[in-house]
Amino acid sequence: MEDLEPNDPIAELITNYHELNSSIIEELDEEPSALEFMRYVARNTPFVVRGGAADWQATRTWTVDYLKDFLGDELVNVAVTPTGNADAPTLYTSPTSPTPTLVFAKPHEEDQPFSSFLTYLTTPTPTTTNPPTTTPSPEVRYAQTQNNNLHHEYLPLLSHRDIPSSIPWARVALARDPDAVNLWIGNGRSVTALHRDNYENVYVQVAGRKHFVLLPPACQAGVGERGLRGAVWVRRGGDLEKEGDGDGDGEGGGGGGGLELVLEEGGEMVPFATWDPDRPEENATPYSHLVQPMRVTLEPGDMLYLPCMWYHKVSQSCPPDGVCIAVNYWYDMDFTGPLYPLSTFVRSVSNQKK
Amino acid sequence: MEDLEPNDPIAELITNYHELNSSIIEELDEEPSALEFMRYVARNTPFVVRGGAADWQATRTWTVDYLKDFLGDELVNVAVTPTGNADAPTLYTSPTSPTPTLVFAKPHEEDQPFSSFLTYLTTPTPTTTNPPTTTPSPEVRYAQTQNNNLHHEYLPLLSHRDIPSSIPWARVALARDPDAVNLWIGNGRSVTALHRDNYENVYVQVAGRKHFVLLPPACQAGVGERGLRGAVWVRRGGDLEKEGDGDGDGEGGGGGGGLELVLEEGGEMVPFATWDPDRPEENATPYSHLVQPMRVTLEPGDMLYLPCMWYHKVSQSCPPDGVCIAVNYWYDMDFTGPLYPLSTFVRSVSNQKK
Repeated sequence: MEDLEPNDPIAELITNYHELNSSIIEELDEEPSALEFMRYVARNTPFVVRGGAADWQATRTWTVDYLKDFLGDELVNVAVTPTGNADAPTLYTSPTSPTPTLVFAKPHEEDQPFSSFLTYLTTPTPTTTNPPTTTPSPEVRYAQTQNNNLHHEYLPLLSHRDIPSSIPWARVALARDPDAVNLWIGNGRSVTALHRDNYENVYVQVAGRKHFVLLPPACQAGVGERGLRGAVWVRRGGDLEKEGDGDGDGEGGGGGGGLELVLEEGGEMVPFATWDPDRPEENATPYSHLVQPMRVTLEPGDMLYLPCMWYHKVSQSCPPDGVCIAVNYWYDMDFTGPLYPLSTFVRSVSNQKK
Repeated sequence: MEDLEPNDPIAELITNYHELNSSIIEELDEEPSALEFMRYVARNTPFVVRGGAADWQATRTWTVDYLKDFLGDELVNVAVTPTGNADAPTLYTSPTSPTPTLVFAKPHEEDQPFSSFLTYLTTPTPTTTNPPTTTPSPEVRYAQTQNNNLHHEYLPLLSHRDIPSSIPWARVALARDPDAVNLWIGNGRSVTALHRDNYENVYVQVAGRKHFVLLPPACQAGVGERGLRGAVWVRRGGDLEKEGDGDGDGEGGGGGGGLELVLEEGGEMVPFATWDPDRPEENATPYSHLVQPMRVTLEPGDMLYLPCMWYHKVSQSCPPDGVCIAVNYWYDMDFTGPLYPLSTFVRSVSNQKK
């Protein structure tokens, strides 16, 4: 770890922030009013409402069988990766160089019948069998499109009013409808790498448990943002379903699940966090050790307010039938006011220090 | 003006802020709801409510005669300066050095019977006589204690319900009573130098007009904050009223109004803005020219929301009877959330650039 100079403004910023703000998330027993919510927006501070969505149809009725009945063989977009890390910094070994480099790996995406996807999710993976297998892990699939998918491929669930189309207190406080309502379906192997979004986010757990690690915008200098070359996982020999190979373990081979990481040509570098708060010694910056992550686990029926521009890493633990389901509501953040330009400033100063 | 480096983070910050935020104040026709107000607090953005206090007893009834009847000869604290600049960067010439230096000059403070103070305010000054005088200006007096004075020396006005003890939408939104309610009485010669406060401020004009120049916290690098030695105006020969010299023009002489600027011994340096947006070429920093001040004039009955940590310079124009009156409500700002530590960070980085 490099020594920090005395009165280093970035170190002071992170320390000051933590002195003034708890790293233990605020827990509410019931949903806030619009005004109460707006106070959290003003403070850019997360909270969790325990059981806030316990009376939603979704949290009561969404089982694998229910969803299969509802969506049947409709094609849904699925992100496929060898180990569950979509949109994540990943080591890439070039055929021409022995030294691996960190790239930003996007998942292979393909359309699959929803029923096949659910069958994959609920089939035990080799690594969970007894005795453990030493063969490469099969691929990991995650329905994680964040393109307002509950108004598109999963519209029947919204139309059936299993979930509300907006969160009343957020809609009233922010004076707008959500820009996107997204469904997330996966298993315990999918992890969403540390990143941030320019949205006010209300995240509702429907089935399974979700583990969030949260960092405020003031801690930007600790996340080790680097410009990474883009890469994408590609399935050798084409998409699984189109090839009729629906067994879910891919083609096997060194890449895991028949997937190969291919560098994107001519693309711009992707600025992305490389520090993982769960492996704090790796890719650490001189400021990472000052960061005090906020951790929260959502149980089914819990709602999380994830303020705009907060970094978050998300992993999940699934029930015996293997499915984790969540819904989130993205509301456009307000780019006026000081938060956005000041956060950009923190990033600029932090990047100049490199 | 020094040249800025390309991609200078501070210059980017000020430019980004202004690209995303108008420098024309938002005008409301009626008071906001608590939720609407909280949206402005979240954006740290000023607004003015035209005529928002037009039905207050104060804006209808507060004349010089009314106030004299109410407060009579009660002693009130008055700030006295030669030219109207209390708590302001001021050039000081030492007896031992010909080079003037900028110091932070605090006013002479003395208790005066309220009726005498009003007589002073409503007596035309020599500079407004015709033909103009060339003698030194008499002193300027301003009742400007910001110590919750409406709960102390001016309590009768509050008890009479001429003004409310809190602003309902601010009290509900911020979930607290004001930390201080202050009365300001002066004439057109008083100017409050550019500074900022750690309060959410609701400022209500009762009589006369007030001219605000406002700068957001993101523009900190433009205000030329410097550590100034403290100084205080001292009346030669003691306080006016105690000496029985109530004619208001002081003792005359070079300092103006018998006041002499005396350096404070052993005090800490006072960090204070030295740039004046109305004299933009003087004391400018390399960033001052990027700052786009927001200007607003309050008419009697207007209310201004002045967000916490905004720099403000205030001057005033008075009606023929010579009195400007305003009331302001200071609500404790929220030090949690990103604004306070990020603003401190801007200041630290700006000061390191010097």
